[in-house]
Amino acid sequence: MKRRQFLATATGGIAASVLAAPAIAQSMPEVRWRLQSAFPKSLDTLWGGAELFCRLVSDLMEGRFHIQPFAAGEIVGTFQVADAVGDGTVEAGYATTYYYVGKDPTFALPCDFPFAPNARQKTAWMYHGGGLDLCNEFFAKHKMYAVPAGNTGAQMGGWYRKEIKTVQDLQGLKMRIGGLGGQVLQRLGAVPQQISAGDIYPALERGTIDAAEFVGPYDDEKLGFSKVAPFYYYPGWWDGGPVIHVMINIDRWNALPKTYKAVINAAAAQTYVDVLGKYDARNPAAVRRLVGGGAQLRPFSQELMEAAFKASNELYDEISAKNPDFKKLYESSRAFRNEEYLWFQVAEYAYDSFLIRSRAK
Amino acid sequence: MKRRQFLATATGGIAASVLAAPAIAQSMPEVRWRLQSAFPKSLDTLWGGAELFCRLVSDLMEGRFHIQPFAAGEIVGTFQVADAVGDGTVEAGYATTYYYVGKDPTFALPCDFPFAPNARQKTAWMYHGGGLDLCNEFFAKHKMYAVPAGNTGAQMGGWYRKEIKTVQDLQGLKMRIGGLGGQVLQRLGAVPQQISAGDIYPALERGTIDAAEFVGPYDDEKLGFSKVAPFYYYPGWWDGGPVIHVMINIDRWNALPKTYKAVINAAAAQTYVDVLGKYDARNPAAVRRLVGGGAQLRPFSQELMEAAFKASNELYDEISAKNPDFKKLYESSRAFRNEEYLWFQVAEYAYDSFLIRSRAK
Repeated sequence: MKRRQFLATATGGIAASVLAAPAIAQSMPEVRWRLQSAFPKSLDTLWGGAELFCRLVSDLMEGRFHIQPFAAGEIVGTFQVADAVGDGTVEAGYATTYYYVGKDPTFALPCDFPFAPNARQKTAWMYHGGGLDLCNEFFAKHKMYAVPAGNTGAQMGGWYRKEIKTVQDLQGLKMRIGGLGGQVLQRLGAVPQQISAGDIYPALERGTIDAAEFVGPYDDEKLGFSKVAPFYYYPGWWDGGPVIHVMINIDRWNALPKTYKAVINAAAAQTYVDVLGKYDARNPAAVRRLVGGGAQLRPFSQELMEAAFKASNELYDEISAKNPDFKKLYESSRAFRNEEYLWFQVAEYAYDSFLIRSRAK
Repeated sequence: MKRRQFLATATGGIAASVLAAPAIAQSMPEVRWRLQSAFPKSLDTLWGGAELFCRLVSDLMEGRFHIQPFAAGEIVGTFQVADAVGDGTVEAGYATTYYYVGKDPTFALPCDFPFAPNARQKTAWMYHGGGLDLCNEFFAKHKMYAVPAGNTGAQMGGWYRKEIKTVQDLQGLKMRIGGLGGQVLQRLGAVPQQISAGDIYPALERGTIDAAEFVGPYDDEKLGFSKVAPFYYYPGWWDGGPVIHVMINIDRWNALPKTYKAVINAAAAQTYVDVLGKYDARNPAAVRRLVGGGAQLRPFSQELMEAAFKASNELYDEISAKNPDFKKLYESSRAFRNEEYLWFQVAEYAYDSFLIRSRAK
């Protein structure tokens, strides 16, 4: 990049003393950014990802690249992060981009959507299947560059006040769920609702809603749903492995020196590994405690899964017919998923299947 | 760390000019290392991991931390990497540590062993289950520090000249396989052999051996086994998700400034994500080509898997009775695996199961 261009656009000031320092230091100007997390501090896994990313960037740059994380609502709210990054209110964000499907449904595809590739497959698509470039072609239209920096793994299908055995049981079901998953459930007869995390419990308790999806055992446990909606379904077929992205205002990204970009990529990858590992490590004990506390674990029926798969594919066809960005990313992701499962069903799945059966022996 | 100590132990020289530079540059002395890969250049995924790691370190440090990768045999051979790192012949290595079970069977546990946690579970164990500290307590006894920097995912169970339906079919079977997997197969009646990669094909062709395990579709395809041993079994129950480590001489590690350690950790994490993603992205097409070329895909029978699981557990009990390091790591890893599968069998497995069944629809 051109140094002049960087000086013109970097925020937060470059210490005057640096300008007089030798070349080795001149290449490392001080940069100070703000990162708006879409997650509150109570979600310690996801907020922890935002904190970790910022700390790693600072550690790698000996403090010369300083990014301060802000919890949801401190600068803008959860659903304004994409706008705030795009218009430069903040230099960076940390979010699941499917929160922004209201702007364009294409925002779901880099993150997660019903029957998407699983967490590992999505990473392979990003780094070795052309996904990262395709996603950033799209993100550029919204004035941002984004890089994967976390994943929750496959989530649960939510908490229900009554058992859901067939598609018939979804008719009129008022459920807290957003994004494309909510649109698919609507096609199956449910009534999706947008409710913020703190309001879910009282709404379930009063019966204002009949069901709610959130994340998985470790996060869900904190909100105590099992007391008011004990049927805990799996899998979350709209959340098979959502990617959390670090989103960066595209002018800020383009203006960064090469080393600073390398630092962001490396810190994001380390955060990705850490966040997914944390979920995987904490979910088992949480699932034990939830079941001990009365949660009734239930798999969605094959009938319901098949109806959801069919409705999802119809939805994707309809959106693709009028949205070329969506079509391009969806077709790439779907083709990649189908190839991946061809292979995953062999060694990976057979290995897991045996150990699931043999675990207790 | 003490700067004096670093100056005394860092290799490759610190440019004299740096000593006269201001504080900002003084904290970044030039360091030059050699990294001995256990893998030849022909394994482009694994050799690619060694190259990528070295490049990322250099990029993050603007060339002031330079690690040069060497292919297997260029300084020492595949099975001498742990010794060469420990005795300081090279500063770093890139290897699957189960290659060094001849020194101590405990070397298998940070990497892979029959019926170990899968790739994602091992990462969770490392970073959020105490695994990394336990492994490095052990590695320190061999004068090294090691950090995960790659994974192949679940491997295949190898190529066989005849079908293997029961444990009886293993009697006297001469198979190219090393490590603890070889020891378990020996207990089941097979005759494990150590043969270098380039010699496997002629040995199978002449019938000097009856079977050989290598890696998975993408790597195996290059060696052309399907022509001489067409039965391709899965899963590789001794290779459910081997971790590739960057191994560092412990004195070199301890002497590194904090920032250089952060750079190694971040570059290793990014390499981890990249190598696993590359395998996941390349294996599906390879499996298609192999089957198209005559490979006969076969799952190991439940009987054989159960016998191998039982023999593995007996082997671990015997080793644990006389090796406290092995016992400590094994018990931690096994307990973690059992907890992980309790959770993975819920959302993750149900999600994968449905998509495996529905992929082609």
